[in-house]
Amino acid sequence: MSVKSRTGAGRRFVLKPIGIVHSPFREPTDIPRDMNRLPRAFTKVRGALEIFPEYAEGLKDVGAFSHLIVTFAFHKSTGAKLLSKPPGETRFRGVFSTRSPHRPNALGLTVVKLASRKENILAVSGIDMVEGTPILDIKPYTARDRKSGIRTGWIRGRRVPAPPRANR
Amino acid sequence: MSVKSRTGAGRRFVLKPIGIVHSPFREPTDIPRDMNRLPRAFTKVRGALEIFPEYAEGLKDVGAFSHLIVTFAFHKSTGAKLLSKPPGETRFRGVFSTRSPHRPNALGLTVVKLASRKENILAVSGIDMVEGTPILDIKPYTARDRKSGIRTGWIRGRRVPAPPRANR
Repeated sequence: MSVKSRTGAGRRFVLKPIGIVHSPFREPTDIPRDMNRLPRAFTKVRGALEIFPEYAEGLKDVGAFSHLIVTFAFHKSTGAKLLSKPPGETRFRGVFSTRSPHRPNALGLTVVKLASRKENILAVSGIDMVEGTPILDIKPYTARDRKSGIRTGWIRGRRVPAPPRANR
Repeated sequence: MSVKSRTGAGRRFVLKPIGIVHSPFREPTDIPRDMNRLPRAFTKVRGALEIFPEYAEGLKDVGAFSHLIVTFAFHKSTGAKLLSKPPGETRFRGVFSTRSPHRPNALGLTVVKLASRKENILAVSGIDMVEGTPILDIKPYTARDRKSGIRTGWIRGRRVPAPPRANR
C-alpha cells in the first residue's frame, strides 16, 4: 500500500468563505510590487474583515488579541506554478519558498493587527489583500507563532534583526 | 445586491493535499491537553513533512529559511462549533479566538523549524499535528510574520514577554 493511499492523498477538502476582506487595494495591480519586499510596508494599511452573520458568534473573545492570522483564498490566482520569479528577483524560486498567489492550493495568509470589533466587522491594519478577498479562517496569533532567530533565505539572505525596542 | 452575492460568498474552494505530516503523535489523544497551553511545549517534537513527488520542485530554496508555516487539514475534525471550551478552560470561547480543530473550515496552522531537507522530505521540529495529517500548503516564515508587543487574550491575559536573549 502506498503512502498516498494509506493516508488519503486522493482526498479533497471543500472550503467555503466565512467572510470577505475590505481593502483599499481594488486589484492586485494596485499593490506596488516592491512593497512585498519591505517588512513594514503594509503595517499602516487599514481595512476590515467582514465576517458573515452566521459565523459572528465565533468572533467572541477575539477582541482580547492584538493580532489575528487570516487565511484567505487567492481568488484571482490564475493557476499554480511550482517555480516563479518574485517581484524584483531575477531567479526562479520554488513556490513553497515564496508567498506567491499561484500555488497548488491558492491559500493566502496574513497576520493583521486588530484595531476594534463592531459586531461582525473587525477593523484591522496590515492589509495586503485586495477588496473582496474571501476569508477562510481567522486564528489568534499567539506566543507560539512568534519565532526568534529567523533566517529568511533569498528574501534577505541573513538573519533578521530584532525590532528596535521602541516598537515593542 | 447583497455583499454576499457581490463578492461570491457562495463560491467553494476545493483543496487537495500536497503531502503528509509524519509525527510521533499517532492520534489526537496522544497529545497531552495541557501541552497546548505552553508556548514552548512542542519546540522539540520532531517529525517530517513528506511532500508528494509531483510538488517537490516547489521546494526549491526552502532550505534557506529557518521556519516554515504549514497549513494543514484537521482531517479528524468532527465538525464546526462556533463556541468551544479550550483545554483547561472553564468558559466557552469563540472558535476564531482558539486554535480548535472544530472550525467552519477545518484548517490548521503550525510554524515549524526546518532542520534539513532530503529531496521531498523536510525534517522539522515543532510538530503538533498527528501522523498522516494532510498538508495543504507550505510558506516561508518571514519578518512580516514576526509580531512584537502581542496580546494573547484569554490565553494569558497580558503581554507576552520577549524571549530571553540567549534564545535569539
